[in-house]
Amino acid sequence: MKTVSIGVIGGSGYSGMELLRLLSGHPGFRVVFATSERWEGRSLREKIPNTHALGDLAFCSMEAGLAQLGQCQVVATATPAETSLATVPVLLKNGVRVVDLAGSFRLRDAHLYPAYYAFEHTEKALLGEAVYGLTELFRSDIPKATLLANPGCYATAAAMAVAPFLKKQLLAEDTLVINAASGVSGAGRRASEDYSYMEIAGDFRAYRIRRPHQHRPEIAQTLARVAQRPVDLVFSPHLLPIKRGILCTVFAKTKPGTSQAHIEEALEEVFGGEPLVEVHTSPEDIRIASVAHRPHLQVAACVEGEKLIVLSALDNLLKGAASQALQNLNLMFGYPETLGLLYGEK
Amino acid sequence: MKTVSIGVIGGSGYSGMELLRLLSGHPGFRVVFATSERWEGRSLREKIPNTHALGDLAFCSMEAGLAQLGQCQVVATATPAETSLATVPVLLKNGVRVVDLAGSFRLRDAHLYPAYYAFEHTEKALLGEAVYGLTELFRSDIPKATLLANPGCYATAAAMAVAPFLKKQLLAEDTLVINAASGVSGAGRRASEDYSYMEIAGDFRAYRIRRPHQHRPEIAQTLARVAQRPVDLVFSPHLLPIKRGILCTVFAKTKPGTSQAHIEEALEEVFGGEPLVEVHTSPEDIRIASVAHRPHLQVAACVEGEKLIVLSALDNLLKGAASQALQNLNLMFGYPETLGLLYGEK
Amino acid sequence: MKTVSIGVIGGSGYSGMELLRLLSGHPGFRVVFATSERWEGRSLREKIPNTHALGDLAFCSMEAGLAQLGQCQVVATATPAETSLATVPVLLKNGVRVVDLAGSFRLRDAHLYPAYYAFEHTEKALLGEAVYGLTELFRSDIPKATLLANPGCYATAAAMAVAPFLKKQLLAEDTLVINAASGVSGAGRRASEDYSYMEIAGDFRAYRIRRPHQHRPEIAQTLARVAQRPVDLVFSPHLLPIKRGILCTVFAKTKPGTSQAHIEEALEEVFGGEPLVEVHTSPEDIRIASVAHRPHLQVAACVEGEKLIVLSALDNLLKGAASQALQNLNLMFGYPETLGLLYGEK
Amino acid sequence: MKTVSIGVIGGSGYSGMELLRLLSGHPGFRVVFATSERWEGRSLREKIPNTHALGDLAFCSMEAGLAQLGQCQVVATATPAETSLATVPVLLKNGVRVVDLAGSFRLRDAHLYPAYYAFEHTEKALLGEAVYGLTELFRSDIPKATLLANPGCYATAAAMAVAPFLKKQLLAEDTLVINAASGVSGAGRRASEDYSYMEIAGDFRAYRIRRPHQHRPEIAQTLARVAQRPVDLVFSPHLLPIKRGILCTVFAKTKPGTSQAHIEEALEEVFGGEPLVEVHTSPEDIRIASVAHRPHLQVAACVEGEKLIVLSALDNLLKGAASQALQNLNLMFGYPETLGLLYGEK
Repeated sequence: MKTVSIGVIGGSGYSGMELLRLLSGHPGFRVVFATSERWEGRSLREKIPNTHALGDLAFCSMEAGLAQLGQCQVVATATPAETSLATVPVLLKNGVRVVDLAGSFRLRDAHLYPAYYAFEHTEKALLGEAVYGLTELFRSDIPKATLLANPGCYATAAAMAVAPFLKKQLLAEDTLVINAASGVSGAGRRASEDYSYMEIAGDFRAYRIRRPHQHRPEIAQTLARVAQRPVDLVFSPHLLPIKRGILCTVFAKTKPGTSQAHIEEALEEVFGGEPLVEVHTSPEDIRIASVAHRPHLQVAACVEGEKLIVLSALDNLLKGAASQALQNLNLMFGYPETLGLLYGEK
Repeated sequence: MKTVSIGVIGGSGYSGMELLRLLSGHPGFRVVFATSERWEGRSLREKIPNTHALGDLAFCSMEAGLAQLGQCQVVATATPAETSLATVPVLLKNGVRVVDLAGSFRLRDAHLYPAYYAFEHTEKALLGEAVYGLTELFRSDIPKATLLANPGCYATAAAMAVAPFLKKQLLAEDTLVINAASGVSGAGRRASEDYSYMEIAGDFRAYRIRRPHQHRPEIAQTLARVAQRPVDLVFSPHLLPIKRGILCTVFAKTKPGTSQAHIEEALEEVFGGEPLVEVHTSPEDIRIASVAHRPHLQVAACVEGEKLIVLSALDNLLKGAASQALQNLNLMFGYPETLGLLYGEK
Repeated sequence: MKTVSIGVIGGSGYSGMELLRLLSGHPGFRVVFATSERWEGRSLREKIPNTHALGDLAFCSMEAGLAQLGQCQVVATATPAETSLATVPVLLKNGVRVVDLAGSFRLRDAHLYPAYYAFEHTEKALLGEAVYGLTELFRSDIPKATLLANPGCYATAAAMAVAPFLKKQLLAEDTLVINAASGVSGAGRRASEDYSYMEIAGDFRAYRIRRPHQHRPEIAQTLARVAQRPVDLVFSPHLLPIKRGILCTVFAKTKPGTSQAHIEEALEEVFGGEPLVEVHTSPEDIRIASVAHRPHLQVAACVEGEKLIVLSALDNLLKGAASQALQNLNLMFGYPETLGLLYGEK
Repeated sequence: MKTVSIGVIGGSGYSGMELLRLLSGHPGFRVVFATSERWEGRSLREKIPNTHALGDLAFCSMEAGLAQLGQCQVVATATPAETSLATVPVLLKNGVRVVDLAGSFRLRDAHLYPAYYAFEHTEKALLGEAVYGLTELFRSDIPKATLLANPGCYATAAAMAVAPFLKKQLLAEDTLVINAASGVSGAGRRASEDYSYMEIAGDFRAYRIRRPHQHRPEIAQTLARVAQRPVDLVFSPHLLPIKRGILCTVFAKTKPGTSQAHIEEALEEVFGGEPLVEVHTSPEDIRIASVAHRPHLQVAACVEGEKLIVLSALDNLLKGAASQALQNLNLMFGYPETLGLLYGEK
């Protein structure tokens, strides 16, 4: 098999670590460098479980990583959004393709960044070039991407829960109500009291309600593209006392006459052949425990009258970040989409 | 101070234990008996933390408890619903007042029981007599109650989150979307694999979506009474990997022109003087950790356009069960409503 | 009842918060001030659950607290050790009695501080005056204390597990092996990644093995005093993924001929009348869940041949800190020892 | 590569599930059948995460499994001990080799079974034939095994923590003190209140102290064989509020003159070349979080005077069960020992 050489910027965050673990087990990628300030000089194998196959590769500084761009065909950035905003243009200028796991190139409308990301977007030209990598919904865009914006974790869980019904034009034009809950790793690596064990264990709360979460416009952008009309929604994220996983509970009004059979047909039509989507018939079967440490999204829906409830679940570090990035990398470099993602494939 | 003598049927369930603990510290109640099959003959003090003040009282059988009805002015039932359905009529015939923490007398419409409680209601006459004890909303009904139906945990959290806005006629006649999540104690004491540590830890899931939860008609009944019109709603309960507490996230459409100021005024008007309700301005402040082990409900709301999000939280074993029962008992016997509920009151 | 006026320095740490909660419910103490940098100006009632009875008292700065010493008979210090080392002399000079929950006055040998506390002890004269407040073992010392050194959490759990057998001279002169495990609150309030939810949940590890924990010499000092000979020991603390509680598992060699009956007699003789010690017959009954949120220590022991295993458990924030401080305060001011400690006492 | 055909009896217990997952990813084994009462007829892929590679294989009954023995070269039994005691002779008579993950063939002395396993051993002849598969200590025995007794989880963690020092004759003949703590999966799949979330979360306790745990004689047997003398020990298991992992904290007395260098040399000599043992220098580095979901054992030790403390950690379902079984299966069938155990090996 050919080998694609890849660099990873931001290798000690939770998403970066998962991506490096997946790459270590992928037959078609070779990790050229992985940067980390905190672990510079330490071997990846020592700091990231189950990366034996990376041999003696050690974390390096951002500077040392950038010095090796010439040996890379692609670089993944798994950094805070501000860092990727500054770094991605440098990478592109050096002729490497980029998969950005941060959020800086997900929203096409530059005006949204100050309110949702707290920065002015300085690379507006790139926003038009970036390919949004929600693989199952926009698969045909991905192979040609030079700059791929890997979707947010909530944004993946929410958009995939709703898209089938918009595609099949089953929904009334009413406000979608998206409740979601995420494990703590969604907040990234934190040395703050808010994310201490004492604060998180035994608690559950909503956040980013008054000042809406940055994934809200990302969800709206995806759904508008799917529906080919604006889609109105509210989005309430919550913080769970678990390490990983997202559960999304969506309420929507259907068009009159929409039956459970229509709902199940829509899921089957849109996701039936998808290798990384598991469609269930019962919403009660959708559980974070069933998707943790797996690259799959699970979804089920039921309708009663015109009231539709959809449940979806995924691992925020995998289908919500690293494994979706690898799905996209596979497509960008001509590999089978699930290569390196399914344990034990032979 | 006078002393009211009380019996407790079902003293080894989580709600019954909390009620006995609270009664042990209350200056105006004397526990005559507490029944438990599993702990018959064992002292309450040994099995329930912080019940030192009950002295040597031991759990007895249901039969032995009923034999002491003559010494009781009131009995609290904290049993499965089927048990309370069979027991409450016996208690009433013996001339004691009853506070029922099970659900068998909450719904006034007997036709709802088969679908939601899986039994035919055999005491329809009593449904008309039962007083529904959501204290803050229906306080004036309670002093005279002979049979008090103590509200469900979710039903308290949800109804109190919405009632202020219905009372002030701020809501459009649109479907309320009520998402809620509860700690495991809400399911009662269970020896089932579903509630084992291995199944619960690290997981989060919805339940009773297709076959709706029995608290849905209870919420609808309360809100219809407050609004004086039918209120349409969906209710999605979820199971949290924590021991206790409920968080409720409600979405509603407001009437045009409803401002944040109107919302805050409604909360202030309805709950401003309530000793056991804490109104916050920020939805992000509403946390299970802040209400666990306390008799308070917390609530906050924010509106954006015509979209209202309300957050409420309570301890399912206290304001959702035992402490609300004691609020009601206080009113039924002429004590100050919060007597025995606030730690350290002097 | 008379009222003793008390100030609390360090009111926003976990031990300080528990002490303030207990004081709020105590009929014989009045809190004059409570200091906190982080919460200066905020009401205690708002920040510490179940302190309703403190009314509108707000946290103040250390400076503002010290300005009110004239109104206090006693001050409790619940700060880092370095802070209490600097503050206690000031308090004593102002004529108030002191209960120090930090560790700066527990070890009588000043030479131990650099190795175990990482500071040179600057108040050696006070070390001789300090009364070590392990209530059940040294009760007669306490009423007259001017400076009371409140014991460490591990030190209380470990010393009380062993003391009965040393007192009754049942142990061989062999190394005691003390394993202990504590909930995360034992480390105090932390904004560090080490104590983040992501690091703690699902983990268990030992710490302070090579550079021994500061409670090791404290345990050795207590046991030597009880045994009237030096006692050799190893101490291995571990960090549990729970919020509160300590379990201590001690191995000791007994003198030949020591039977289970001797062991149980020793526990009964030493602890039989103790209101806050629960002696069990089975080591398997000793559980953190049984002592959490309670002021009691639980203990049980079994011997097989000459091998003795003792289990003890306590709540590190209560019997390991705040409730033991209040036991001592009760004795210092002539109150019944358990006043304000047992829920619902009438 | 050749393919060894294997059957698994007891495929829905936690160890059986892990073994099936590992086998699904192993290039040299083909799973012929997997039995499960609870999941008979359901596909393995649906019930066990990350077993995609098993295709459509479905769980079958024990009877149906035994009917396929003719197609199997080896069978793994991951059942309760009583079941494996009854089943293993049947398997052997049918000419298949057996790896028994239950405990029924671990202890060579048949007299120990009634006290430790609560059954009379009915297959004493097989006890002499069984090969004890603690791979790193008894590697040369394993290739020829017909009946391999796969070690217990605690027994692996404890014996490997001590063996290097016994091998190098560094320990005094004094009692070893072995404290260990395990996640809940060690107790197997349970529908009992004792293992409910409500009982486990927030708790920590010892168990099997008075009636010692069945792994105590297993540890003693291994250590006696390594030391070539009887080894005296106490063993205190504890139950952790986590899903998986064991930490073992061992205290031993060394011979006079044993230095930290001697200790580290012993670990290096015995484990230096081991691919699945990680020797650390600091006991504080040994963490359950570092070994969970990995086939490795971690160990470190430090000596102070003649007091040695050793820490070891492993995943009870992997190195304590399924991955050690696969290590042994690899050796029994001529594969490299770590084949199929290291993620991403290429």
